[in-house]
Amino acid sequence: MRSVVLHAATSLDGYIARPDGAFDFLIHPKDYSFAPFYATIDTVVMGRKTYDVARKGMSMFGPSVALYVFSRSQPPGARDGVVFVNQRPAPLIARLLKKRGKNIWLMGGGELAREFLKADLVDELHIGIVPVLIGDGIPLFPPGFPQREFKLVENKTYSKGLIVLRYKRARHKKRGRALARAGL
Amino acid sequence: MRSVVLHAATSLDGYIARPDGAFDFLIHPKDYSFAPFYATIDTVVMGRKTYDVARKGMSMFGPSVALYVFSRSQPPGARDGVVFVNQRPAPLIARLLKKRGKNIWLMGGGELAREFLKADLVDELHIGIVPVLIGDGIPLFPPGFPQREFKLVENKTYSKGLIVLRYKRARHKKRGRALARAGL
Repeated sequence: MRSVVLHAATSLDGYIARPDGAFDFLIHPKDYSFAPFYATIDTVVMGRKTYDVARKGMSMFGPSVALYVFSRSQPPGARDGVVFVNQRPAPLIARLLKKRGKNIWLMGGGELAREFLKADLVDELHIGIVPVLIGDGIPLFPPGFPQREFKLVENKTYSKGLIVLRYKRARHKKRGRALARAGL
Repeated sequence: MRSVVLHAATSLDGYIARPDGAFDFLIHPKDYSFAPFYATIDTVVMGRKTYDVARKGMSMFGPSVALYVFSRSQPPGARDGVVFVNQRPAPLIARLLKKRGKNIWLMGGGELAREFLKADLVDELHIGIVPVLIGDGIPLFPPGFPQREFKLVENKTYSKGLIVLRYKRARHKKRGRALARAGL
């Protein structure tokens, strides 16, 4: 079964970026590799703001990775190697989960993470915590979604004080039901 | 040398309490004991809101533990077993650090944590992360203080998915200078 994985690095105070979008405070220890996670995904979903920042880096994704950008302002459809989507996440995710495939990376946090959590679409969290308080910024988990329980399944430390925590959603009901409740 | 230790439990999204102050989401795994931390402190500083919530529990502190409550609305001075303080934290902390003693527990987070971080008075963080996103609440680290670097010194997992992270402040300059810059 494919999972939707929110994989992101944050400051100790929970920010994915400074108020202006800069993420210079993030560290990349030599002993941390993105490759094992990358091998588990074949689909990336992101918000338009993340896309604007990460746009130049999109070539890091091979042609076998499907890229979806949620945007209320851009016309929907495929162009520039990505598919723009201007609806809520649940219908797209329901469609993706029906197909066979690897995991789906929910890239970045912020508003899209809130939408996904509202619809209970997040199956796993991979959070890399950088040992710095930045004092203000764009939160990984902005307020405004119902309580969601998780299980801690792994924690791993790297040099420079990075710790990566992995959680799985602890649902009392099957995800199928959550999607059903969302009208799907 | 005595240290100021911010020791608190938070949800995965960084809240110490729900918007109304409730902290029912916090877990107390059987294999976690508060005693080792308690043995390292002889002074507790807290904000007035934390005091109002924790008031009935103040008897947990023995007579050898000094309790300070920061409040702008209460008249300063000792009563009901605590000392009310209505100035900024730096002068009190400077005075406490000059005396021999055990560590100083900065209890709770929120506004007082911000004041302490503004004045660079936090030497250690002990953060217990509970595996639940609550979606809204009172943040451990509310925005509005300058960037502060830390070093990860310990991480320990307990049952029920609790993980406790311990950090020490990584200062380029000695704390004495920070206090000096704060006019002390």
